[in-house]
Amino acid sequence: MTASPIEHYRVRSLPSRELLADRYREVRDLSIELAAPLTPEDQQVQSMPDVSPTKWHLAHVTWFFETFLLKTYLRGYEEFHPAYNHLFNSYYEAVGPRHARPARGLLTRPALQDILAYRAHVDAAMVELIGGSEEATLETLLPVLETGLHHEQQHQELLLMDIKHVFSCNPLAPAYRNRKPAMVRSLPEMEWLPVPGGHYRIGQDGNGFCFDNETPVHETLLGDFRLASQLVTNGEFLEFIDDGGYQKPEHWHMDGWAAVQAEGWSSPFYWREEANGDRTEFTLAGLVPLQHDAPVCHVSFYEAAAYASWAGARLPTEQEWEAAAIYFGLGDVSEDGGNRLASRLFAPAPATPGPAGRPLQMTGDVWEWTESAYLPYPGFSAPEGAIGEYNGKFMVNQMVLRGASCATPPGHARITYRNFFYPHQRWAFSGFRLAS
Amino acid sequence: MTASPIEHYRVRSLPSRELLADRYREVRDLSIELAAPLTPEDQQVQSMPDVSPTKWHLAHVTWFFETFLLKTYLRGYEEFHPAYNHLFNSYYEAVGPRHARPARGLLTRPALQDILAYRAHVDAAMVELIGGSEEATLETLLPVLETGLHHEQQHQELLLMDIKHVFSCNPLAPAYRNRKPAMVRSLPEMEWLPVPGGHYRIGQDGNGFCFDNETPVHETLLGDFRLASQLVTNGEFLEFIDDGGYQKPEHWHMDGWAAVQAEGWSSPFYWREEANGDRTEFTLAGLVPLQHDAPVCHVSFYEAAAYASWAGARLPTEQEWEAAAIYFGLGDVSEDGGNRLASRLFAPAPATPGPAGRPLQMTGDVWEWTESAYLPYPGFSAPEGAIGEYNGKFMVNQMVLRGASCATPPGHARITYRNFFYPHQRWAFSGFRLAS
Amino acid sequence: MTASPIEHYRVRSLPSRELLADRYREVRDLSIELAAPLTPEDQQVQSMPDVSPTKWHLAHVTWFFETFLLKTYLRGYEEFHPAYNHLFNSYYEAVGPRHARPARGLLTRPALQDILAYRAHVDAAMVELIGGSEEATLETLLPVLETGLHHEQQHQELLLMDIKHVFSCNPLAPAYRNRKPAMVRSLPEMEWLPVPGGHYRIGQDGNGFCFDNETPVHETLLGDFRLASQLVTNGEFLEFIDDGGYQKPEHWHMDGWAAVQAEGWSSPFYWREEANGDRTEFTLAGLVPLQHDAPVCHVSFYEAAAYASWAGARLPTEQEWEAAAIYFGLGDVSEDGGNRLASRLFAPAPATPGPAGRPLQMTGDVWEWTESAYLPYPGFSAPEGAIGEYNGKFMVNQMVLRGASCATPPGHARITYRNFFYPHQRWAFSGFRLAS
Amino acid sequence: MTASPIEHYRVRSLPSRELLADRYREVRDLSIELAAPLTPEDQQVQSMPDVSPTKWHLAHVTWFFETFLLKTYLRGYEEFHPAYNHLFNSYYEAVGPRHARPARGLLTRPALQDILAYRAHVDAAMVELIGGSEEATLETLLPVLETGLHHEQQHQELLLMDIKHVFSCNPLAPAYRNRKPAMVRSLPEMEWLPVPGGHYRIGQDGNGFCFDNETPVHETLLGDFRLASQLVTNGEFLEFIDDGGYQKPEHWHMDGWAAVQAEGWSSPFYWREEANGDRTEFTLAGLVPLQHDAPVCHVSFYEAAAYASWAGARLPTEQEWEAAAIYFGLGDVSEDGGNRLASRLFAPAPATPGPAGRPLQMTGDVWEWTESAYLPYPGFSAPEGAIGEYNGKFMVNQMVLRGASCATPPGHARITYRNFFYPHQRWAFSGFRLAS
Repeated sequence: MTASPIEHYRVRSLPSRELLADRYREVRDLSIELAAPLTPEDQQVQSMPDVSPTKWHLAHVTWFFETFLLKTYLRGYEEFHPAYNHLFNSYYEAVGPRHARPARGLLTRPALQDILAYRAHVDAAMVELIGGSEEATLETLLPVLETGLHHEQQHQELLLMDIKHVFSCNPLAPAYRNRKPAMVRSLPEMEWLPVPGGHYRIGQDGNGFCFDNETPVHETLLGDFRLASQLVTNGEFLEFIDDGGYQKPEHWHMDGWAAVQAEGWSSPFYWREEANGDRTEFTLAGLVPLQHDAPVCHVSFYEAAAYASWAGARLPTEQEWEAAAIYFGLGDVSEDGGNRLASRLFAPAPATPGPAGRPLQMTGDVWEWTESAYLPYPGFSAPEGAIGEYNGKFMVNQMVLRGASCATPPGHARITYRNFFYPHQRWAFSGFRLAS
Repeated sequence: MTASPIEHYRVRSLPSRELLADRYREVRDLSIELAAPLTPEDQQVQSMPDVSPTKWHLAHVTWFFETFLLKTYLRGYEEFHPAYNHLFNSYYEAVGPRHARPARGLLTRPALQDILAYRAHVDAAMVELIGGSEEATLETLLPVLETGLHHEQQHQELLLMDIKHVFSCNPLAPAYRNRKPAMVRSLPEMEWLPVPGGHYRIGQDGNGFCFDNETPVHETLLGDFRLASQLVTNGEFLEFIDDGGYQKPEHWHMDGWAAVQAEGWSSPFYWREEANGDRTEFTLAGLVPLQHDAPVCHVSFYEAAAYASWAGARLPTEQEWEAAAIYFGLGDVSEDGGNRLASRLFAPAPATPGPAGRPLQMTGDVWEWTESAYLPYPGFSAPEGAIGEYNGKFMVNQMVLRGASCATPPGHARITYRNFFYPHQRWAFSGFRLAS
Repeated sequence: MTASPIEHYRVRSLPSRELLADRYREVRDLSIELAAPLTPEDQQVQSMPDVSPTKWHLAHVTWFFETFLLKTYLRGYEEFHPAYNHLFNSYYEAVGPRHARPARGLLTRPALQDILAYRAHVDAAMVELIGGSEEATLETLLPVLETGLHHEQQHQELLLMDIKHVFSCNPLAPAYRNRKPAMVRSLPEMEWLPVPGGHYRIGQDGNGFCFDNETPVHETLLGDFRLASQLVTNGEFLEFIDDGGYQKPEHWHMDGWAAVQAEGWSSPFYWREEANGDRTEFTLAGLVPLQHDAPVCHVSFYEAAAYASWAGARLPTEQEWEAAAIYFGLGDVSEDGGNRLASRLFAPAPATPGPAGRPLQMTGDVWEWTESAYLPYPGFSAPEGAIGEYNGKFMVNQMVLRGASCATPPGHARITYRNFFYPHQRWAFSGFRLAS
Repeated sequence: MTASPIEHYRVRSLPSRELLADRYREVRDLSIELAAPLTPEDQQVQSMPDVSPTKWHLAHVTWFFETFLLKTYLRGYEEFHPAYNHLFNSYYEAVGPRHARPARGLLTRPALQDILAYRAHVDAAMVELIGGSEEATLETLLPVLETGLHHEQQHQELLLMDIKHVFSCNPLAPAYRNRKPAMVRSLPEMEWLPVPGGHYRIGQDGNGFCFDNETPVHETLLGDFRLASQLVTNGEFLEFIDDGGYQKPEHWHMDGWAAVQAEGWSSPFYWREEANGDRTEFTLAGLVPLQHDAPVCHVSFYEAAAYASWAGARLPTEQEWEAAAIYFGLGDVSEDGGNRLASRLFAPAPATPGPAGRPLQMTGDVWEWTESAYLPYPGFSAPEGAIGEYNGKFMVNQMVLRGASCATPPGHARITYRNFFYPHQRWAFSGFRLAS
């Protein structure tokens, strides 16, 4: 294959133009489907600095294709609007001054209709680009195209996280979709699954799409460890609360304890206590009774670690998590009962019993906090230029989460995937699994 | 007349039901007209805590009629939505827990369409109430109705202030209405108008509508003073800037100087300096070249006072301002060339020459900062109950502004009117006139 | 008399050099006496931005004499240290860049010993200046000298306020002086004293020392009013608390209510509730049981106003307060039973019964919040130059207090004295008296 | 040996009582020596929340011996003061409520003299305990004693860091000791030293004192890497600055860039630019000209990482650093020319040429930022109880530094030592060395 602006993985063989165009449309259509239940007003607001408006997500992912593909590779392409490069750039400082992040919610213009027109304009041009490029060009741009599609999928999950937060701020507790929570089933027994130590190959070898932070593949030496077969559930977390977990500094990191004090945390992010003492949880289906058997979700790293300390266990490292996934043969991520966006449940669901001796829900329902800080793999180097800023600049102060969640789009989960958030953040679909 | 929940003024004679209904519709229609150029998204956002979304204004003023009139006086009235009392209450703490002010912009639901339906529902009921009430009831509710209409007019001006701020945060600098600024005319000469001291009757005697803060009428003893015949203009304020006014602490109050340092102020709120050095001003018509002859607008009390010190003068007290208005016979506020909302200019305009020896633009174009803190008049007492909270609770830390502005609706200007803002606030249509 | 840098009052006749030197020494010695019980460490710290270290007070008041007298009038005077002008200047922006106020507590050098040497150096030079100047010079500098002495007296009161705050932050609750609180006596009956309205001459005519903010004297027209004969006591304030005063928004200004919420206020500043429920108060004698008959102290304007609303009364304006003082002939401030610094009680004391029909403790025990904002008197103009910055620049956002407190030095109380603090501040010896 | 409250290391053989007492006295005397140049005021203040007053350090380390040894093991020991447990406890939440950290500087009482008496009281009792305990007791308490001494040594370094910060806030720039900076020598050439990959044993095996965070010893697999033979110098860092390093976002972590913007960083912490453009550096000898050949010091992790990116290199991981130390046989830390507290230079010094092919100043002059987050070693578990809180609770959000600095006391440096700070902190003696 030829040289590409994205060097950390290779495209093994060039798919047909039709397949590429289908794949492009499929990803793009999903964004529109996800925004469909929302009014123009819903898509406008930014309920905290971490959140972006739906409208902004729809425009920003489009900007990626326009900037990194159409402007470079499509002869005669006409930019949709000269100000959009400024407005819908995100953290790519190298491309130009960006619109300050917490002010995204103030951009009432362009209106949603303008942004939908922007998407249509770019989609038409992309179809032209894919259909009309010479093979050599297609080989060159394919990694960028793949990156653009995975980038849009990331924002699809963010869109759901963000609109959940927006709606949670409304005393009316609006529902995104009126979907009953998954039925409560009899949970399987929790097992401690032994995983033998030794040398494991961690990360991606670059054959097939991955983000740069998953490379280079490298050997790691691990000791023996045991991994919980299941995620910690709401019911289990409630025991921690009832035992005074949020009042016992000995289980918390110093910074975690400070967050508990400063923020007044006393339960996971979206839990509420009704006037009559009942526990409810705000979900994308509105306010529902707390489901004890579902995995606990929307906890910070601090809460996950405090629970682990209270339970006499710990969180796995990201290397242990990936080694277990290898050891249990989770290469095909679809076989552990994990519930992802494809299910359209929009919420973590209780585990379905599976074969004994194997972990459940490793790649679905909730992202799993690990004990690992988000750092470069040995030998990592960020590619040059704007796309090179992609991941390396975040590699401090954040913790790695592994797996996938109920909001992860089809084709976006990998056992080498490294998600990351600050240890205090709770608006992601984040839960955890114990190790020891 | 009979007893009324609002005791600080009397309605002299009962107008006909038709006149009342016309007056009601006229005020209500103006709100709709003002919101018409705005998209649902424009009407959603809150660009700073002081600002409320357009949509919220439209609902809140409606809530006033529903709460203080329909629920009390209209038999069989059905509340439009049980949550609206909570959502659209503002500072009336006595009525119930209110939705936190800075979170108004997060209420994407109810949608704009719902709020327009709320207005229609209330309007229909109000027309029924006005048309169908017995005379005795009408006498009782008339002061509340009047208060509700003046309340809505206050929010009409706020709506314009607020949407101007929202649009000013957008790098695209959208225009609310594409209206050319008023032409530059040859300005009349500025004169120092002498006003003799003595006893003046300040405030309203309660015959005709006024807010409670304008009562009771009382005698005040004033010394001789001189008042500027004109407002300070952009061109004059530019001289202050060019003379280093924002860098000279000796002209500033301690707190004003601290604001200059903390906020980095170097010009009025909406002024900008283009890359080529040109001065522009953001207006409701978008970004326009700075008009030197127009009154300076969107300055804080601190800036007004600093300018006055620099100019070797001072600001008038509110008593002096009102005494001058009495002395010059401005009882009919429409005769001083002031430009108010009726002109649909949506911006302060240069003064039109008038008869010599009389002040210009006393009741239009910009509110005028005075040297007076907003305090109760001697003998003031707030009425009991929810409406009683109306004004008294704000009587600390704010400064009085007199006159009226280019955004003041018809029938809402009075020479006894006491407007008030914190000394650092700049998003109102606020300017000033000198005294000495 | 000759021209003087301070123009708002005249010195009627020139005292003898001996009297002047005595007066100088007396004031200066009191500062040393007040600092005597304090260790070098006590004199070092700044427990909040409003507080200055004792050591800084001792140096700053000395800097005033060095800067405004010795450098100008004493031939051959040698500056003690070139950096002190920078370090011990306060808000006189015109004199040069000042050391940032909240960092005063970081100046461990110069050491206390250095500052005592600075005082001795300046005192010796001042004695030389007073003793050796020609009469014409003495006439010129006398107003500055008087101002310097009154300035030092202001800082003597601040020194006590500040060290009280410093000690209050220490869990050991150290005592400044081990002095028993004044004995509880049988309180006189509270009376509502009528004061007739009319024209009153407010302010100083400039014959005798005053601060510029007390000028010019001017006529004010007042209505009839009644003034409480006594200060509100701790016991009375406790009734307000027990009646839920801190939980009832209807009695509070909007900004006061916000302060209650943000700061968690539930009692006056230095009150504490012991584990057994007993009320104690931190004083300069350490922690003592709450004295019900003593005037309530260390309350904000907001608390004073809320109490007044709860009690169905109001605070007097500063004009009313001064008119009452005139009407009751309090020209000689020593005859109303007020307890000032001369008593060395260092705390407000219960009232001593006096003749019926006269107000008690008008000029002692606690400063009295008024309903008046701190604004310039009609015709006020600040003198030019550095000393001119003295008072005018504070004339926004603050409220006037009248009277004097238990920490006011001898010769420093006047019925025209205008003290001022921000409405939220509580570390002054501030209480209040009702009007109606 | 018998069971001990500190289980992560073993004391191999029991030293004689005399040796123990000598060792105790030696460490304790050094604290007094370090505080000797400071006035009581110097020892009082806390110039930022991270800083503790000298006086507090002197008391807190004493509290450790009193609490964990004397109260448990010395029969009849009388507590010096009942409040000191509260006042001088630090982060040991399990022991009881602690005095809020940022308020340490407000404790003017107890006075320095009281704290020196506290030290004398505890020292006498400790000598009695060491001299009079039975051998079995001595064996039990020995690990605690060792921990207490190393704890005091940590605070000796903190004391110097902290007083440097205190003095840096003073416009007079006081000198702690008037010591000339080390002479500028001809620097040796910088070399890239290759270190072969493979399995390395990282951490302490527990034979001899170490902190719990250095355990358990474990095998790590490393790839080949190269380490810089020298620390980055002031002169080299100046090139980064002159090349616009602080203005180029592409070299910075997102959070680092945010810190640059928010704090206005443009050079290392204590560098200054004089009016004439000369670069100076504030040191414990006061303000001195910037020494180009000395290692750069007082930089944050962000600055170290940005420099590395700019230089086309990276920081080593902590495992690489320790592997290099093993590979180059730095077991005896005294042989790499490192300048520690024993030199009484109180500042990093330029490198002294050493044998080619070996790293210089690995264990002296400045702590070296690594690319490793501070996380538990595999198999780490914190001991139970109060001393168990020692290190584990800090294991999030911080980065590891290796080596030792010019302020590290004798006997306190180890190649397994893991120091840690937040990535934005700059008041430690922190520099860095490149890897690639």
